[in-house]
Amino acid sequence: MAHKKGNQTFILDKPVIIRHSACIVGQKESEGPLGKYFDQKADDDFGMDTWEKGEAKFVESTYKKLLSGCDVEENLIDCILAGDLLNQCTSSACGLKESGRPFFGLYGACSTMAESLVNGALLVDGGGINNAVCMTSSNFCSAEKQFRFPLELGCQRAPNSQWTVTGCGAVLLSSGGNGPRITSVTPGIIRDYEISDTNNMGAAMAPAAASTILSHLADTERDINYYDLVMTGDLGITGRELCREILKKHGVDAPKDIYDDCGAIIFDPEQGTCAGGSGCGCCASVLCAYLLKLLEQKHINKLLFVATGALMSAVSTKQGEPIPGIAHAVAIENV
Amino acid sequence: MAHKKGNQTFILDKPVIIRHSACIVGQKESEGPLGKYFDQKADDDFGMDTWEKGEAKFVESTYKKLLSGCDVEENLIDCILAGDLLNQCTSSACGLKESGRPFFGLYGACSTMAESLVNGALLVDGGGINNAVCMTSSNFCSAEKQFRFPLELGCQRAPNSQWTVTGCGAVLLSSGGNGPRITSVTPGIIRDYEISDTNNMGAAMAPAAASTILSHLADTERDINYYDLVMTGDLGITGRELCREILKKHGVDAPKDIYDDCGAIIFDPEQGTCAGGSGCGCCASVLCAYLLKLLEQKHINKLLFVATGALMSAVSTKQGEPIPGIAHAVAIENV
Repeated sequence: MAHKKGNQTFILDKPVIIRHSACIVGQKESEGPLGKYFDQKADDDFGMDTWEKGEAKFVESTYKKLLSGCDVEENLIDCILAGDLLNQCTSSACGLKESGRPFFGLYGACSTMAESLVNGALLVDGGGINNAVCMTSSNFCSAEKQFRFPLELGCQRAPNSQWTVTGCGAVLLSSGGNGPRITSVTPGIIRDYEISDTNNMGAAMAPAAASTILSHLADTERDINYYDLVMTGDLGITGRELCREILKKHGVDAPKDIYDDCGAIIFDPEQGTCAGGSGCGCCASVLCAYLLKLLEQKHINKLLFVATGALMSAVSTKQGEPIPGIAHAVAIENV
Repeated sequence: MAHKKGNQTFILDKPVIIRHSACIVGQKESEGPLGKYFDQKADDDFGMDTWEKGEAKFVESTYKKLLSGCDVEENLIDCILAGDLLNQCTSSACGLKESGRPFFGLYGACSTMAESLVNGALLVDGGGINNAVCMTSSNFCSAEKQFRFPLELGCQRAPNSQWTVTGCGAVLLSSGGNGPRITSVTPGIIRDYEISDTNNMGAAMAPAAASTILSHLADTERDINYYDLVMTGDLGITGRELCREILKKHGVDAPKDIYDDCGAIIFDPEQGTCAGGSGCGCCASVLCAYLLKLLEQKHINKLLFVATGALMSAVSTKQGEPIPGIAHAVAIENV
């Protein structure tokens, strides 16, 4: 069973293995720098007649893809932990309504992939639950419509704004089998630096990312160099540099070869994506398609995955509320 | 550590104790049949200038109330599991942003109280996490505005519609201390009977409630009479009778003295609440103020608490999507 170390980190004592993963992205993501890593792309929201139904189809299809590539029987999946950005997380609920397995709905904004892994890893480590599916999704069009402007308006984008990734990623966490292990987790604490610019989510989330990384390193008594790669996300290019700066102020040097951000690497700036990618699907697809392959091919052996979320709604920002951030950290290692 | 029994039930082997609880409700709830059980009421959304900020204040105040009545130091709280009905669960995030403790955001619609207890109980049983706060809230005005009509329109209510409870409930789950124990949990499976009438949420959720109760009884090889009380919620008066009917079709007789529903008992029909109460805060406040007192005073010793959620949004129903339901069951016993 897990034991707590420091203020907020849990060391997993039993094997919690990332046994399988699956990922489906949209057209634009498949044309970006990580294009070759994504094993499936879906054009035009699977042809669904609304963006929201399209996003649910991403969830349904990714779940089916995970199961089809998987050596665990469907009825042995003890639970699914999933959430998304849509109001009332309907793409997860609609996409998984035929799954027939116990379902925990999560809401962690863009931190959801890490939230589901932290929660799922603690559940698998705790016993009882042997197989947990962790997944999340986002869709550019449904997110723009809900959080920003109607797409038809063709609004100009702010330089620090980010482009919501269309994509879904899923992993199967298991107490057995082969794959990299989750060795420790640091669930995040909400941090509010009173940023209220909805076009600068990277700034709103960077303090939370830095806080969780610093807590994780302090709790585990590790230097950042313990990890081959620390990946935040989706801070984007602006947020990544802010996070690096905050870490530096706290005495942690995060050089470019060790620290990067999922939102900063998923698109090429020439794709017109301003400060980079965002959305739950950003970290999920970068993890499932790219980072897990780096681990599999032993290009890296120790990864700290730190997905970040901005805890706001279109209503809360219109009412003048600032945007608190949260970040959860998951240590994934070849052991 | 927990062990799985049957298809979806987990028997907790270690003590998981409901060590403390707190609850704050609104004016109307305090005037209802359970009025004397609520230990605090808040008028007029704590005087906040928006309903959403009012709901966040309910969360913040209930969390503080829980801590103030609690013999566990704040820094020993290992995590908070919370969610609500507002878009992007902002009342939980805003209400808890000063908590300084690790936060897992959940979305289970009105099933959130049970979802947080199921998840929290498995985490505490699993070790590592010794103290977990489980909580949820809802607010009549913010829910009406978001899901139905602007209050200013004064729309006539459908007879089967329910009245969102203004209230928040929180419990501290602990591996030590005194209080009733969570002995087993049955996380729910999404059930879709293709109900699409947003004025009849009871009908949308009743199949999920019945499904989870039937699974729990089958998995644990128990008769419904094992429990002194089985409480669903928030099915309301209409949904409660539908649930009773479905149970009967599956050979389970759920008489009035054993089976009831949180939404059906929180208001008096003379309060103009149509089919009864709803909202995450309904089950949360009925559990924290009333059901836990019944257990404490040994009026009942074995409770099956089955909170239900309707997994829809204003957008999904406008797009013609049906309303899937989910229900999670928590067995709470004096042992």
